[in-house]
Amino acid sequence: MPEIVPLEWTGDALRVLDQTRLPWEQSFVVARSHRDVVRAIRDMRVRGAPALGVAGAYALALAGRELNASNLRELQASLSRVGEEVASARPTAVNLRWAVDRMLRTASSCTSLAELPKRLEAEAVALHQEDVAANQRLSRLGADVLPQEGTVLTHCNAGALATGGYGTALGVIRAAWEQGKRLRAMVTETRPFLQGARLTTWELLQLGIPTQLIVDSAAGSLLAQGEVRCVIVGADRIAANGDVANKIGTYSLAVLARENRVPFYVAAPTSTLDLSLPSGALIPIEERSGEEVLRWGEGRIAPAGVSVRNPAFDVTPARYVTAIITERGVAWPPFDETLRALVAGGLPREAVMVVAPHEKAS
Amino acid sequence: MPEIVPLEWTGDALRVLDQTRLPWEQSFVVARSHRDVVRAIRDMRVRGAPALGVAGAYALALAGRELNASNLRELQASLSRVGEEVASARPTAVNLRWAVDRMLRTASSCTSLAELPKRLEAEAVALHQEDVAANQRLSRLGADVLPQEGTVLTHCNAGALATGGYGTALGVIRAAWEQGKRLRAMVTETRPFLQGARLTTWELLQLGIPTQLIVDSAAGSLLAQGEVRCVIVGADRIAANGDVANKIGTYSLAVLARENRVPFYVAAPTSTLDLSLPSGALIPIEERSGEEVLRWGEGRIAPAGVSVRNPAFDVTPARYVTAIITERGVAWPPFDETLRALVAGGLPREAVMVVAPHEKAS
Repeated sequence: MPEIVPLEWTGDALRVLDQTRLPWEQSFVVARSHRDVVRAIRDMRVRGAPALGVAGAYALALAGRELNASNLRELQASLSRVGEEVASARPTAVNLRWAVDRMLRTASSCTSLAELPKRLEAEAVALHQEDVAANQRLSRLGADVLPQEGTVLTHCNAGALATGGYGTALGVIRAAWEQGKRLRAMVTETRPFLQGARLTTWELLQLGIPTQLIVDSAAGSLLAQGEVRCVIVGADRIAANGDVANKIGTYSLAVLARENRVPFYVAAPTSTLDLSLPSGALIPIEERSGEEVLRWGEGRIAPAGVSVRNPAFDVTPARYVTAIITERGVAWPPFDETLRALVAGGLPREAVMVVAPHEKAS
Repeated sequence: MPEIVPLEWTGDALRVLDQTRLPWEQSFVVARSHRDVVRAIRDMRVRGAPALGVAGAYALALAGRELNASNLRELQASLSRVGEEVASARPTAVNLRWAVDRMLRTASSCTSLAELPKRLEAEAVALHQEDVAANQRLSRLGADVLPQEGTVLTHCNAGALATGGYGTALGVIRAAWEQGKRLRAMVTETRPFLQGARLTTWELLQLGIPTQLIVDSAAGSLLAQGEVRCVIVGADRIAANGDVANKIGTYSLAVLARENRVPFYVAAPTSTLDLSLPSGALIPIEERSGEEVLRWGEGRIAPAGVSVRNPAFDVTPARYVTAIITERGVAWPPFDETLRALVAGGLPREAVMVVAPHEKAS
């Protein structure tokens, strides 16, 4: 199977697989400036928190070449302004801010105008490669947590498309499948943007993993009927206490999973952790245009004059989360301790893995 | 405001407002035979449990005219077979079976071949009128239960369109609005058939009630944020213990409402009660074609080869239900006692209303 490559650096541009056109066609947007990248992010041609981080890094790399400056300090100041523009393109995923900050630190460390563009390019490429490596590692760690067989429910798209490559929640399912676990994926369509129906099923078909598609509101009933062994989702931002911002509908799945005693896992690289926030109440939730809900093919699904609420994300309180799977280890509650331990790196993998072994699903 | 008339008996045919074409156009299907009615039911041109009951009754009335028989007994036997066909057109809503049984009892009580068609027509018209009257009465009773102001969340369509007229859950909202309660309706789009987006918003706009549309999976998060004062839905079948079969997604809303201490009301005429079933586990759940999920305007939302699960209903255990609002009174837990008392009619309205007054939301 050829790997799905959502973002490709061509040496002078970022080639973006256009996720608004999948699964109907594989077309690409070539972003030659940071503005092109910001536009691709806003239009959701690239989406998914880790992928946004990678795209944001390349936006800064492109800015490092395109901006005219007569001296280093001027260029660094311009890059800071570009960084704000990039980081605010979508507010909920912290990876975008995280990548921008990392790129700006690299810019700050440059000592000459001449070296800056190359240093930024190298940093973006490194960040991209590290994201893929982190996803592969967290996927292997998470694969051990999944059951030997049965149905795994996932929401939205946390696959290769949502990341620099390989995926997070879908990476875990993939790694478990490749270990020989006899799994089936159940995928919510994920209104309004249909990431589950359009993107996740497309990835799973290519991986050869048995897949069932359901409407979002069918998940609860199937959980109640014992058809689901565990739920696994990605994340857009995780607060220090383990509260998780993710695609709208995640909170509902978490509540329904706990109500039916089904484990609820979150898989995300540590770049998704925002330990500066004590709780999820402080995570900004993007509200998108009601048009996203109303548009239906060429038509509309509701009469003219109806008002729409379209929050793109929700916050799942940590008490509903069974474990958070990262590339540095699997964190079990109490998350305010285990997430800090993961980031500090002071604990061996096993120490983090076994915080709450009784919670393991397998 | 002109009343919405989903079903109209013209004297020799049933005129069905085609709900698959709303809100885009108001077109009608004229059913001149029982087969036409069954087709309209299967194709969901008419839907909603009470409306199915009314349509089913007219199907039998049409059959009473169209069937050739040389004697009364032969006609009664043929009607029984037609009754099976009608009742099984959609299996979950018990109102269809209830209406068929009532029509067959009328047929059985006929003493001549000549009187049967007129008796069946009169019975269907009476059943239709009784349904409208029951909905108006339960709506007035339910209006007292709703809060004085705030947002009421509803799922699917339980309005005039879902009934012989006036509506159940939406009838309660309407009656409360007409009482002067300052309510706003929050409406889930209700995938896959989009009854909420297409039908409920269309009705609410005509009633002049402020309305917000959301995707199904946004309801949980909005409940958690305290934006919803109560949830009210209709029902397709209610078991003796108070378990409620209703549109897929109802169970999830009920769990999320309880998790956030928001009252969850069910509004339905007593024709929706099936006291022959001790619990909801025995209610047949219709699984519809995956095409309903996959079709999107002219296109499809998922790659070819994806399998789909499309259960049309789910069962909400009685423990999540705050009260069941019927035309005979509002039943509070324990439902196995209060529902039987309602049907037996031995209790004055107040006795049923006050079973659990502390549960009242207002």
